[in-house]
Amino acid sequence: MSSEETPKTANKMWGGRFTDGPSELMEKINASIDFDKVLYEQDIKASKVHATMLARQDIITNDDAEKICAGLDQILLEINDGKFAFKRELEDIHMNVEARLKEIIGDVAGKLHTSRSRNDQVITDVRLWLRDNIDEIDAKLVALITTLITKAEANVDTVMPGFTHSQVAQPVSFGHHLLAYVEMLGRDLSRLRDCRARMNTCPLGAAALAGSPYNIDRHWTAQTLGFDGPTENSLDSVSSRDFIAEFVFFASMCSVHLSRFAEEIVNWNSDGFKFVDLSDAFTSGSSIMPQKKNPDAAELLRAKPGRIIGSLNTLLIVLKGLSLAFMKDLQEDKEPLFDSVSSIGLCIDVARGLVIDLEPMKDNMQAFLDRGFATATDLADYLVQDIGLPFRDAHHVTGQIVAYAVAEKLTLHAVPLAEMQKHEPRITTDVYAAISNDASLNARQNFGGTAPSQVIEACKRARLRFVDAR
Amino acid sequence: MSSEETPKTANKMWGGRFTDGPSELMEKINASIDFDKVLYEQDIKASKVHATMLARQDIITNDDAEKICAGLDQILLEINDGKFAFKRELEDIHMNVEARLKEIIGDVAGKLHTSRSRNDQVITDVRLWLRDNIDEIDAKLVALITTLITKAEANVDTVMPGFTHSQVAQPVSFGHHLLAYVEMLGRDLSRLRDCRARMNTCPLGAAALAGSPYNIDRHWTAQTLGFDGPTENSLDSVSSRDFIAEFVFFASMCSVHLSRFAEEIVNWNSDGFKFVDLSDAFTSGSSIMPQKKNPDAAELLRAKPGRIIGSLNTLLIVLKGLSLAFMKDLQEDKEPLFDSVSSIGLCIDVARGLVIDLEPMKDNMQAFLDRGFATATDLADYLVQDIGLPFRDAHHVTGQIVAYAVAEKLTLHAVPLAEMQKHEPRITTDVYAAISNDASLNARQNFGGTAPSQVIEACKRARLRFVDAR
Amino acid sequence: MSSEETPKTANKMWGGRFTDGPSELMEKINASIDFDKVLYEQDIKASKVHATMLARQDIITNDDAEKICAGLDQILLEINDGKFAFKRELEDIHMNVEARLKEIIGDVAGKLHTSRSRNDQVITDVRLWLRDNIDEIDAKLVALITTLITKAEANVDTVMPGFTHSQVAQPVSFGHHLLAYVEMLGRDLSRLRDCRARMNTCPLGAAALAGSPYNIDRHWTAQTLGFDGPTENSLDSVSSRDFIAEFVFFASMCSVHLSRFAEEIVNWNSDGFKFVDLSDAFTSGSSIMPQKKNPDAAELLRAKPGRIIGSLNTLLIVLKGLSLAFMKDLQEDKEPLFDSVSSIGLCIDVARGLVIDLEPMKDNMQAFLDRGFATATDLADYLVQDIGLPFRDAHHVTGQIVAYAVAEKLTLHAVPLAEMQKHEPRITTDVYAAISNDASLNARQNFGGTAPSQVIEACKRARLRFVDAR
Amino acid sequence: MSSEETPKTANKMWGGRFTDGPSELMEKINASIDFDKVLYEQDIKASKVHATMLARQDIITNDDAEKICAGLDQILLEINDGKFAFKRELEDIHMNVEARLKEIIGDVAGKLHTSRSRNDQVITDVRLWLRDNIDEIDAKLVALITTLITKAEANVDTVMPGFTHSQVAQPVSFGHHLLAYVEMLGRDLSRLRDCRARMNTCPLGAAALAGSPYNIDRHWTAQTLGFDGPTENSLDSVSSRDFIAEFVFFASMCSVHLSRFAEEIVNWNSDGFKFVDLSDAFTSGSSIMPQKKNPDAAELLRAKPGRIIGSLNTLLIVLKGLSLAFMKDLQEDKEPLFDSVSSIGLCIDVARGLVIDLEPMKDNMQAFLDRGFATATDLADYLVQDIGLPFRDAHHVTGQIVAYAVAEKLTLHAVPLAEMQKHEPRITTDVYAAISNDASLNARQNFGGTAPSQVIEACKRARLRFVDAR
Repeated sequence: MSSEETPKTANKMWGGRFTDGPSELMEKINASIDFDKVLYEQDIKASKVHATMLARQDIITNDDAEKICAGLDQILLEINDGKFAFKRELEDIHMNVEARLKEIIGDVAGKLHTSRSRNDQVITDVRLWLRDNIDEIDAKLVALITTLITKAEANVDTVMPGFTHSQVAQPVSFGHHLLAYVEMLGRDLSRLRDCRARMNTCPLGAAALAGSPYNIDRHWTAQTLGFDGPTENSLDSVSSRDFIAEFVFFASMCSVHLSRFAEEIVNWNSDGFKFVDLSDAFTSGSSIMPQKKNPDAAELLRAKPGRIIGSLNTLLIVLKGLSLAFMKDLQEDKEPLFDSVSSIGLCIDVARGLVIDLEPMKDNMQAFLDRGFATATDLADYLVQDIGLPFRDAHHVTGQIVAYAVAEKLTLHAVPLAEMQKHEPRITTDVYAAISNDASLNARQNFGGTAPSQVIEACKRARLRFVDAR
Repeated sequence: MSSEETPKTANKMWGGRFTDGPSELMEKINASIDFDKVLYEQDIKASKVHATMLARQDIITNDDAEKICAGLDQILLEINDGKFAFKRELEDIHMNVEARLKEIIGDVAGKLHTSRSRNDQVITDVRLWLRDNIDEIDAKLVALITTLITKAEANVDTVMPGFTHSQVAQPVSFGHHLLAYVEMLGRDLSRLRDCRARMNTCPLGAAALAGSPYNIDRHWTAQTLGFDGPTENSLDSVSSRDFIAEFVFFASMCSVHLSRFAEEIVNWNSDGFKFVDLSDAFTSGSSIMPQKKNPDAAELLRAKPGRIIGSLNTLLIVLKGLSLAFMKDLQEDKEPLFDSVSSIGLCIDVARGLVIDLEPMKDNMQAFLDRGFATATDLADYLVQDIGLPFRDAHHVTGQIVAYAVAEKLTLHAVPLAEMQKHEPRITTDVYAAISNDASLNARQNFGGTAPSQVIEACKRARLRFVDAR
Repeated sequence: MSSEETPKTANKMWGGRFTDGPSELMEKINASIDFDKVLYEQDIKASKVHATMLARQDIITNDDAEKICAGLDQILLEINDGKFAFKRELEDIHMNVEARLKEIIGDVAGKLHTSRSRNDQVITDVRLWLRDNIDEIDAKLVALITTLITKAEANVDTVMPGFTHSQVAQPVSFGHHLLAYVEMLGRDLSRLRDCRARMNTCPLGAAALAGSPYNIDRHWTAQTLGFDGPTENSLDSVSSRDFIAEFVFFASMCSVHLSRFAEEIVNWNSDGFKFVDLSDAFTSGSSIMPQKKNPDAAELLRAKPGRIIGSLNTLLIVLKGLSLAFMKDLQEDKEPLFDSVSSIGLCIDVARGLVIDLEPMKDNMQAFLDRGFATATDLADYLVQDIGLPFRDAHHVTGQIVAYAVAEKLTLHAVPLAEMQKHEPRITTDVYAAISNDASLNARQNFGGTAPSQVIEACKRARLRFVDAR
Repeated sequence: MSSEETPKTANKMWGGRFTDGPSELMEKINASIDFDKVLYEQDIKASKVHATMLARQDIITNDDAEKICAGLDQILLEINDGKFAFKRELEDIHMNVEARLKEIIGDVAGKLHTSRSRNDQVITDVRLWLRDNIDEIDAKLVALITTLITKAEANVDTVMPGFTHSQVAQPVSFGHHLLAYVEMLGRDLSRLRDCRARMNTCPLGAAALAGSPYNIDRHWTAQTLGFDGPTENSLDSVSSRDFIAEFVFFASMCSVHLSRFAEEIVNWNSDGFKFVDLSDAFTSGSSIMPQKKNPDAAELLRAKPGRIIGSLNTLLIVLKGLSLAFMKDLQEDKEPLFDSVSSIGLCIDVARGLVIDLEPMKDNMQAFLDRGFATATDLADYLVQDIGLPFRDAHHVTGQIVAYAVAEKLTLHAVPLAEMQKHEPRITTDVYAAISNDASLNARQNFGGTAPSQVIEACKRARLRFVDAR
């Protein structure tokens, strides 16, 4: 039996199926510059503060710090201008910046890395980057919530069928329905802010894992970079990524909420419902059927939780069972984070566009309500409250009347009084007022109910909580 | 071509492969009593408050309310005593309780369900149940954190190898290492409390989806049940489950942190390390090899994130793309929640047991440190700080000295001064102090570093933040 | 600083928050008997074959083997009769059986475990159990596929709207639509069979990890237990669980396919569509609205992928990064497997019930088609094929005619010839035949298309491939 | 209360937080060209075959077909040469190619899309692309398996400690250990081939969803593109993505197996084990500690299942509950597939590199074995088989002897005969042979056991099954 390879003889060793030699393979699996270059701004900012702190503490000279900062400023310009040549063989953004710094300012560049390791540097950069992005997403989310409230305010009196089990249940205010999403997104916003508060500490100074032997000032660095303070434990600082998982959980949950809204838009826009008339902005048409508006954007919004939940799994799986302290496994935290940030931001923007786009078709909603016997519950309530029937009997009578309407293909309103009285003689013409959609709506007067008066109050509270509170 | 079945002829219809008829199948997929019976205490409690509120609002009589409450009290006793016969055909805990209530107090039982639907009832029960369990888990987590701090305090001066990439990096205090987990679990605790605060509103009164037409007092109900207030929107109240997903994310993250600790215990307990001497409490032995202590509990602790992350997925998948309002899909929220609650509680308890069990074997840690050249960094730092070598040269000299030690199978300490001086003549006997593990530890004096003086302060702060703060 | 506990003093050690002592905690996390007892039949079966093999190989006497087998038969009866007392302190099914065997036949019971370890025993049991269940699920899946084909055969000519983007696209045969699921489920079936073939090897004889030093006959054992042969590698035998993950992937995929079908049933049953009239078997009604049929079973079918995909994650997470050989982590393989087996079996049964239940409401489908301009594409095709217009011009003319119909609220058929001729004078009355739903259907005559003649052939092929092939 | 926006007034509508207008947002969420351009080769290939088929069937002229094919060939060259300008506003690869085709050959380009829709086109492209990649991955996997067998053949007699629960259990052959991975990867390979066989049918001709009204020849197209035949059902063809999920499950499972191997390499390379001496190829060094070899590549290999399992979730979540037929949600299938293909390919290559790199350090393995009392089981077996002790007594005696060795810090071999005889007088010097690692290995002579004679046979079988079988 012959052996396919003779280990340690490079040519044969890497022959056969390999198209790449070991160094290319190592670079492929190891280099992170292709994705971590988005951190350049934060990397440079943190380096400048670090250098300044080193000078403040007399660890390097003021002159050196100034040279370093000037060099870093130049690099920032080069990257912003698209003139910076990122190199895979330099592995990551930190090494790319440092190597270029040396080209610009010479050996003094080496002093920048005093009392710092890539382990604390990278996670400081990621925190700064995520914090910036959280602030942007916060603003987007507030904008979406504001748009929903505005649309709700305009539709307090728009009556639509409320569904359970995808079947008409009771009339609800379209504005009330939209406010349900305000609540969901409001909790998402609150989770986002909790996440920001929890992550806003500065790991710089943790060094490789045990802390730095230099006389640095971690509090000054933290404060200058806008953190609430330095992290408490050096090992935790370089080993933990739960703040990333927490953010991606926020994004997962928020995208799930948006996917529910997207599903509704797809349904409302479908031939079975025709509740809304989407504009061309977020649909694609058909050259043959002018009435067709494929809700592509809503469909994609519905699908996006797939990738974000996928990323949440990625992060939890990578972290599970990992011993302390830094391991290279942790490099796999970046792509799921970066993708989640851009995905959720896009989802929120598109959702806002869709809300603006929403034009409720009130007649279709009304017709749908009538077909669905949406106020059958109100008929029973009338029999209890106005006629004095026990609830059980009221149910029975209602059932009979609705059965008649079904058989005769009538709406509930169209059932003649005489027919109703066959089942319960004490019914009067008052019944028609009681079973109107408006009466049904207005009856639900409790806090949080769908009565328009309540929805107006709810809109006011929502503006206070989410818009004015900023 | 013959057809295997004639639809609508029941016998043939359900013939063939089916072992169960349609009603059995429907019961199997539909009934939730097998798992939702754990909610009985909360279901009864909420029903009593609801009945009392109805009487306060003159919707039912005081007498009826008293009968209902007395009947519910009896049911509670029956269930606690194991005398209650749960019935699958009654589907869920709500119907089981209500049917029994009718047996006990007669038709007046029917009045309990006034102004309530199972949609708002079930989610009120789940919130009450989860809140109770969160409080228990909070206490368990504080106990674990306290135990870790106590163990850290006892091991401020215990020196162990700190690892990166699973290789010896630098000496760290064992207490410092344990405090890294205090930080992780402290953030988990903080997430748990955020979750509790966010979920503590009362959905009762949302009714089926649109709110109740009765003149109820949602604020009184909410307050009496210990909630901060009623939920804001009726549709959201019966349709949303993000508070469950948020809890299960907490549990996932916490279990991931515990799995990292478990992995370390498995490693420390292994033949390659022998850093700890686990007691028999959480190990299983071998009748042949008396020295063998299989760390079964730690292995299971390491594995548990699998099921909890699985449950997190379950919840997010069930919710994704679900239109409003209540759908039966939402019934699938309970098993993942219940399992996550019991799993994370057990994990925390077992982790605490393992911490108590931990007996660091200091000699083995010491020997490991020496084999690993853990203070090579300190040698370089000595050359920079005491001799004044540029860092680049210091690295070079250190590399040569360590290479000599490796070749001669010596620890760094055992390299003779003369040998060191071959590489850098200015080295003096001071070097041996500088490269001692204790010197290395003590040098890391910054906030959050591993110097014992810092670790003592960190323990004090941790006690204040997590133990005394309660 | 006082310490909350004095380690090694049991009372205080376990004081505080702990409600359970260490042994109870260990039992709680360690014992598997609560779930692995379902393996009892396979455990006993494999033990009998093992004992018989030991006697055949003269490792134990025939007499001992007979005693062991008789004792095991008695235990089987006891368990089947519900008379067996499972004990948590005996940890698992294997120890429970063995302990009971000793009670029945005395010390000779100990010989059963010769040349065997729990590591190879448990995974043999699981394979036998899963194989039995795969065979049941295979039969269920074939039954469902058969039912779908039967329903398709009865509905070759039933015309329904085919949708893209949830909007009416083109007419399709309802039978053709059902056959789409036959294809999906057929691939699932094929994956299930691949899984069975791949897993059907016998691990017995792998012992703890390295193989057995006894002169056993692994081939005889494997063959007698219905396996294709013994496993190839002892370490792999006790360490791998990919056959479980593969099964749960099958179950995930199959449940996803069923969830798509369930979503369609929920839609078809909704007020917006009314395409089907579900019977009471799998719906829950409303005492008020007699026309309401909440499709609870379909909703749960739609939700079930949540738990099964969750279990798939659990398994992959538990296995990821686990070094060889047996680790206790692997005990976490059972609950996700057991739940997936019962869930997918139930889902398939319920789906079959729903298919039997399906009664297409042809008039509603027809009306929906007309509203949706489903044959606009056919009008364009008529203009190209019969009139000779270039495709681009044909699209343009079609668009104008449909726009007129939309504006006038007409179906395409109801547009007068004169109106059509305004846009293209060469249009004749032939156009109405060309744009009938039947003409549209019949035009799609290629292999796999929706023309009824093709659907008849597809049904025949499906019967051959899935039903007769058995 | 003022409204933040006046819907339908574009300027205000898109004011506020939006940085992009609706069309940019729509393009951002809708365009797929950034990732689906990798399909260009398959898109062009399938289009050429489609055009040729159309000419064969007299649907277009031969001349048109030739023009189309020539134009497509030119586009292929342009893309390969990097001269093709991909445009986001053209949305996807299909439209980019078609638009360019029109520039090159004029209006006749429009005929290419006859009897085809993007729905069947894209999924044909993806199948072709995946099939090509499966063939590459198959080759890589065979190469890895071959390398493992080769390394196993060279290490049949290399004795290493076999572990259970991360503790020394029994001696095993290093070759045997490697063959465990051959079995895992062999099953992965078998799954990959099942996946390929199941997916190899051609969807072209399914058109939008219902099949094409043109007289096309789906069998010829399928055959010419190397498929086994056309797909059976047009709706299934454009709606299903299970072949993608199946591939990504293969990739997940395979990456999990590789992660287990990676974990072992990280452990073996660690200071606690030193079982292997990794070369520089896949490690990163330290400038200070020359003996440090951070196993970066192995760590990343260990982490990679995170992203692939994440992608598996993404796919299953996107598909769950999606009604037929094509929905835009399905566009989210591509990125998880593309990333999984490149990730698993890289993982396999890197794993192969690591295997080639593996140099077992036999002395360290030996020392580890002795410390771990790896042959204690063999001592008990000796007492049973040579001395005739009942197993129970044998265990007891062994336990005493090992306890003595532990106390005296001796290996089992170093325990004097006299000491052993204190516990069992009949022990002779034969015992030392029985408890040698080699004796332990050689005793495990059954099929699949670790005895070197068995491992040699296993290597032969593995070569036949995986290498020669190709």
